[in-house]
Amino acid sequence: MNAEIISVGTELLLGEIVNTDARMISEGLSSIGSDVFYHTVVGDNPGRVKKALEIAKDRADILITTGGLGPTFDDLTKETIAETFGKKLILHEDILEEIRERFRKGNKPMSVNNEKQAYLPEDAVIFPNVCGTAPGCAVEEGGKTVVMLPGPPRECTPMFENEVLPWLRKKSGAVICSSTIHVMGLGESSMEQILKEKMEKSSNPSLAPYAKEGESTVRVTAKAASEEEARAMIKPVVEDICQTLGNVVYGVDVPSLEWVVVHGLIDASLTLSAAESCTGGLLAKKITDVPGSSACFSGGITSYTKKIKTRLLGVSPVTILEKGVVSEETAREMAERVRAMFQTDIGIGITGCAGPGEDDDHNPEGLIYVALADPEGTEVRELRGSGLGRERNRNKAAQTALDMIRRRYLSEEIIYGTD
Amino acid sequence: MNAEIISVGTELLLGEIVNTDARMISEGLSSIGSDVFYHTVVGDNPGRVKKALEIAKDRADILITTGGLGPTFDDLTKETIAETFGKKLILHEDILEEIRERFRKGNKPMSVNNEKQAYLPEDAVIFPNVCGTAPGCAVEEGGKTVVMLPGPPRECTPMFENEVLPWLRKKSGAVICSSTIHVMGLGESSMEQILKEKMEKSSNPSLAPYAKEGESTVRVTAKAASEEEARAMIKPVVEDICQTLGNVVYGVDVPSLEWVVVHGLIDASLTLSAAESCTGGLLAKKITDVPGSSACFSGGITSYTKKIKTRLLGVSPVTILEKGVVSEETAREMAERVRAMFQTDIGIGITGCAGPGEDDDHNPEGLIYVALADPEGTEVRELRGSGLGRERNRNKAAQTALDMIRRRYLSEEIIYGTD
Repeated sequence: MNAEIISVGTELLLGEIVNTDARMISEGLSSIGSDVFYHTVVGDNPGRVKKALEIAKDRADILITTGGLGPTFDDLTKETIAETFGKKLILHEDILEEIRERFRKGNKPMSVNNEKQAYLPEDAVIFPNVCGTAPGCAVEEGGKTVVMLPGPPRECTPMFENEVLPWLRKKSGAVICSSTIHVMGLGESSMEQILKEKMEKSSNPSLAPYAKEGESTVRVTAKAASEEEARAMIKPVVEDICQTLGNVVYGVDVPSLEWVVVHGLIDASLTLSAAESCTGGLLAKKITDVPGSSACFSGGITSYTKKIKTRLLGVSPVTILEKGVVSEETAREMAERVRAMFQTDIGIGITGCAGPGEDDDHNPEGLIYVALADPEGTEVRELRGSGLGRERNRNKAAQTALDMIRRRYLSEEIIYGTD
Repeated sequence: MNAEIISVGTELLLGEIVNTDARMISEGLSSIGSDVFYHTVVGDNPGRVKKALEIAKDRADILITTGGLGPTFDDLTKETIAETFGKKLILHEDILEEIRERFRKGNKPMSVNNEKQAYLPEDAVIFPNVCGTAPGCAVEEGGKTVVMLPGPPRECTPMFENEVLPWLRKKSGAVICSSTIHVMGLGESSMEQILKEKMEKSSNPSLAPYAKEGESTVRVTAKAASEEEARAMIKPVVEDICQTLGNVVYGVDVPSLEWVVVHGLIDASLTLSAAESCTGGLLAKKITDVPGSSACFSGGITSYTKKIKTRLLGVSPVTILEKGVVSEETAREMAERVRAMFQTDIGIGITGCAGPGEDDDHNPEGLIYVALADPEGTEVRELRGSGLGRERNRNKAAQTALDMIRRRYLSEEIIYGTD
């Protein structure tokens, strides 16, 4: 059963909004094992919507449309689908009453064009809209299933996840579950090399590697008669891959590396502080993105000038003079000093040249030192970027700091999340 | 001349990433007056890519593809386009040498499959890739133009904006220019209300308002025979709108609010420091996102616990005890203390409850105080969010701090950028 997502909306073609609905629906379909072969975006133009439907009808079993269910004259998806699939539109009095009620509650007058939303194709399965007025629906004709969803993500997402996905899953008969293994410090191609044989041998559960911005993931997906059975099939495969990859794995089904670090530090009753120069608060920002991070993160200093590094943070002016602001020694002292100032178990120091271009002291763009100080001593890593640019250099430095913490304290066992 | 964007990448169909390239390209094409009628997303499958190209060839004049230009075996866009349009692929020695050089600089071995990226269709116009290895290109055949761009947004965006868009603009004959007015602190519907009459009256230059995450913009677009003429048409319209909207306008053609603040402070020889609690470094991160920010930003303290606020930052324990950590008074002292510690002209203090949910002291999610201290005194703003969520609450607080700086020091004249 392969699917195509057809997003209807001129605002997408003008670049005013990004197509997050298609991403959300694709992810959901992938989680129930349904292949998506195409996304199509088309404007609010009945002729072109019709052409897009004709093409999709020929190449997909399930068509999912978003947008064009609203009250205005250019909302034409339902009408065009009814025409393409030879269905009449029927007025649903109960839905009309709900729409009226919604306007009454909101103390707003209801214009007559809102009645349009209560007309649905004959024999349609109806999906209620808890966040808006236009209901969604599905029709089946000639072996094809067409699902119509509203466009605004706040309406589309709950309707798809709570109504449509369970309905599609039930139709398909099987249950599909997946787990995602998160990896830091191993490129996609090296990972593919290591897992190649396993990937070729496995079909259920199947393995899918993926790389993005300095991280890689492997998704393990199983299809079975029940969720319990699918989970039981996934478990040994996940454990096997984690063992094969070793300590580059930072978690399974976790939201992010910072989440793993924050929860790991809290569990271990360890506290953390950070002195940041070139990352300018990015590491602190990442850590405090995680709710509850105040239980392990005391805070930090962004020492963006030499004066602040020496006067406030207490880095030795001799070190800076002799070794430079961007040096292993300065990073080391920053980590040790912030740890002492904030009285935490762990101190992080980051100094470098994020770019663009070399800095005033002729340090090359991307040369960054990341130091971790704790009661055992201080460890420093040198990073060299080549043409990554300011944003990615900064991100790499903050991720390296998080990964150094993880490897030092949390690599004994795999951390599982529920994401 | 209508265009279709074809995005090639299985990761889009799996819902792993959202199609930001298509949004960016659509916006660019719209800015030069080119209509986009369809977006198509297709996986890394040569048969299906070919089918998508055949369909697009029949319905669009300009085809823009993203993705599939890389070195791996499933990067097939160029090969499939060459086949569909009857073009040979030619090895470019100079490009191969550049790719080799990039690997040498990064101190990484270059695997042989990277050579694939130096093969381009015959007669292609080449677009250099300043942020990656795979160059882009364009071919023309049978009245159709096909532009091939890399998939990663950090490579695709600069190539499209700096190379492809000027090239397409030149081909189209007429020149289309636009300016964007950036607004903070005025909702989209209020702005539309204010500008309604102007919008209805104007067709060239045309006005397009747009809203996103706490900010709004108005784009003024003119079509003329030369860039000079188009710019001359835009200028009085921009000035009129800026005057109508008043000091909610923070800049014209500027990259961001933080850019305006950093450059404004540098021009005024003012220095800044920040003490952040609930934003946890986000304000510092935003400011230091701007290259050159060290000329005005001395640094800051992330005081994520009460202990750090009192012991390191020097906020009075009595204030915290009597007024609470989340209070106007604590924000005020944080701003004044960080200003004194870092010896800067301006000090910012931010304290609040970002959520999710209320904090230990029962402060509601979204209650945040932002203080600005300078030699004239200290100003505090109270924010109340309702269900915005942690990320948006934090962002709103950091943006408020930036806007307070702007309104206090930089609202005398409109700041123009070159974005």
